[in-house]
Amino acid sequence: MARVYNFSAGPAVLPESVLKKAAGEMLEYRDSGMSVMEMSHRSPLFMDIMNETEELLVRLMNIPADYQVLFLQGGASLQFAMIPMNIMTANKTFDIIHTGAWTKNAIKEGEKLGKVNVLASSEDRMYAYIPSFENLKFNSNADYLHICYNNTIYGTKYNTLPDPGNTPIVADMSSCILSEDYDVSKYGIIFAGAQKNIGPAGVTIVIIKKDLMKRADKNLPSMLNFNVHAENRSLFNTPPTYAIYMSKLVFEWLRDMGGVKEIEKINRHKAALLYDYIDNSKLFKGNVDKEFRSLMNVTFSTGSKELDALFVKDAEKKSLTNLAGHKTAGGMRASIYNAMPVEGVQHLVEFMKKFEVEHA
Amino acid sequence: MARVYNFSAGPAVLPESVLKKAAGEMLEYRDSGMSVMEMSHRSPLFMDIMNETEELLVRLMNIPADYQVLFLQGGASLQFAMIPMNIMTANKTFDIIHTGAWTKNAIKEGEKLGKVNVLASSEDRMYAYIPSFENLKFNSNADYLHICYNNTIYGTKYNTLPDPGNTPIVADMSSCILSEDYDVSKYGIIFAGAQKNIGPAGVTIVIIKKDLMKRADKNLPSMLNFNVHAENRSLFNTPPTYAIYMSKLVFEWLRDMGGVKEIEKINRHKAALLYDYIDNSKLFKGNVDKEFRSLMNVTFSTGSKELDALFVKDAEKKSLTNLAGHKTAGGMRASIYNAMPVEGVQHLVEFMKKFEVEHA
Repeated sequence: MARVYNFSAGPAVLPESVLKKAAGEMLEYRDSGMSVMEMSHRSPLFMDIMNETEELLVRLMNIPADYQVLFLQGGASLQFAMIPMNIMTANKTFDIIHTGAWTKNAIKEGEKLGKVNVLASSEDRMYAYIPSFENLKFNSNADYLHICYNNTIYGTKYNTLPDPGNTPIVADMSSCILSEDYDVSKYGIIFAGAQKNIGPAGVTIVIIKKDLMKRADKNLPSMLNFNVHAENRSLFNTPPTYAIYMSKLVFEWLRDMGGVKEIEKINRHKAALLYDYIDNSKLFKGNVDKEFRSLMNVTFSTGSKELDALFVKDAEKKSLTNLAGHKTAGGMRASIYNAMPVEGVQHLVEFMKKFEVEHA
Repeated sequence: MARVYNFSAGPAVLPESVLKKAAGEMLEYRDSGMSVMEMSHRSPLFMDIMNETEELLVRLMNIPADYQVLFLQGGASLQFAMIPMNIMTANKTFDIIHTGAWTKNAIKEGEKLGKVNVLASSEDRMYAYIPSFENLKFNSNADYLHICYNNTIYGTKYNTLPDPGNTPIVADMSSCILSEDYDVSKYGIIFAGAQKNIGPAGVTIVIIKKDLMKRADKNLPSMLNFNVHAENRSLFNTPPTYAIYMSKLVFEWLRDMGGVKEIEKINRHKAALLYDYIDNSKLFKGNVDKEFRSLMNVTFSTGSKELDALFVKDAEKKSLTNLAGHKTAGGMRASIYNAMPVEGVQHLVEFMKKFEVEHA
């Protein structure tokens, strides 16, 4: 069968041209006589790949010179431990705004290592909004403020940032990195698992303001110490070389598309196609408050579990796959990351229109 | 150019048939319409891949039912912290036999978390041997005995195991797993980064006796707790899905080759081709004591730095690549993992013969 439109929340769709390039280079990268998978991570050829990957990301995100880019393992889940281990000072406390499953995990892991102050929560309405910043009481002794910028499961996102004064903001951007033009200088740390907007699962991007790294206890295990990875430019041990190479190909694709500002336009267009239709539909309705709608994860439902299940099943037959919502959220979810072409969203909207007519 | 004979110590050569299969399935796995890289780790199709990978490994290594197989991230280097974190009890101490760079790192990381007793060391002669077991004084309160079964950098390996009584043996098998038929029941933990004998860098195999996992403090960060990974069958968070899929292809290749007993015969044959020639050579000599020679990493030199450098350079021109020894060891190193075909070793020996004639 032909390739489908894959609305998976992650691991997720990759650009077809990137997969073709990877397939073509699988047995031999350039004139090396070997696959990237077979290369020593200390070889000049792989070091070039690593350097180029980092440079591409720095340019795409306009990352300032006082930030360090790290390519780590363990996903965002390991960051929920590494960040408090490295960035909590003697205060051993951080603030967090609780907006979904991933901040819940960050709270749980953080509480093993220190005190976590939940400043606000949107749990009361199934995480359908981002709490107002007006009544937030930042703790003056908090080592950082943790937020999850885009909530993959429920489908909300921030539009502006809270202002905790001198407290650095640590942002989980696993499902939105490179989808919009972010001002990196406003963050202490941005971290993201690669498997949504970057590449295959197995590499984790951490962008960290260098002065924050000084906080780390020297006695931390090396693999859990940001400084060790920074000093070794992410080559303290064997990094996930192939996942880094795939990230490079995706970064090149994004650069050739026109970069982040251009993909943001496309992402806004794709999201608008879906949301505009949903807003005018008599059958489908969005799950979350309009002003906090995610550009990446569009959640909606018919209000009927049976009809939702039928929708997902029928869509699958039309090569529109992985549209079921997360088990904790129900309904449908269309993840429309950078690599989802506009045509995929157009096909989905066409299918929704037909489904609505048939089930009005 | 054509594919080379790649003697890299890791990441290392993969079977050509495996790379061809991966290239062929890059854009579409079976009739899924997507790459394995693009699949949700919770999808039935990927769950099948995960289960099959585990089953293949269990069969290849004849892993008993009271052992848990985990597919983790972070390499052996993260295990140097995770193992003491999980397996050290109130005693907070472990024994180790120091045989090279990787036990050095295990000692360094272990000392951050508890007391490390170095029972014996081969540092005095540049790690050219495995210390005798006769004079080992095991500590009765040691939580485990750590060994590195095969020393990638210096080229030694164990032939028999020490007997620490009831103290479990924890073995780093990063560079020898699946190369010989090991009796898993003799170990408390076997761990290995994949990038030598299994697949691409980015997945780490941990085979652990289930009762040992009970020792872990419940308050460990989830990602660093073996129990959390075991309860979730390595799907607590998004695993390195593509690296696991590649491991599966390599396991299938090994199964079709006749399994571990068969590859051990081939490995012994390959190593003998090299060692027999070296033993009869007037130019080349092996770096380590004969009885502890590695089957995977054959280290040798001419005794002259200049000639060694020339050898590596000339070999490269003949498509025999990555033969330089590790910077701390000097000389040459031919890593001849499972995926290195016999022909590769034959070509290398032929080249060595010619080089010897030319430089006698």
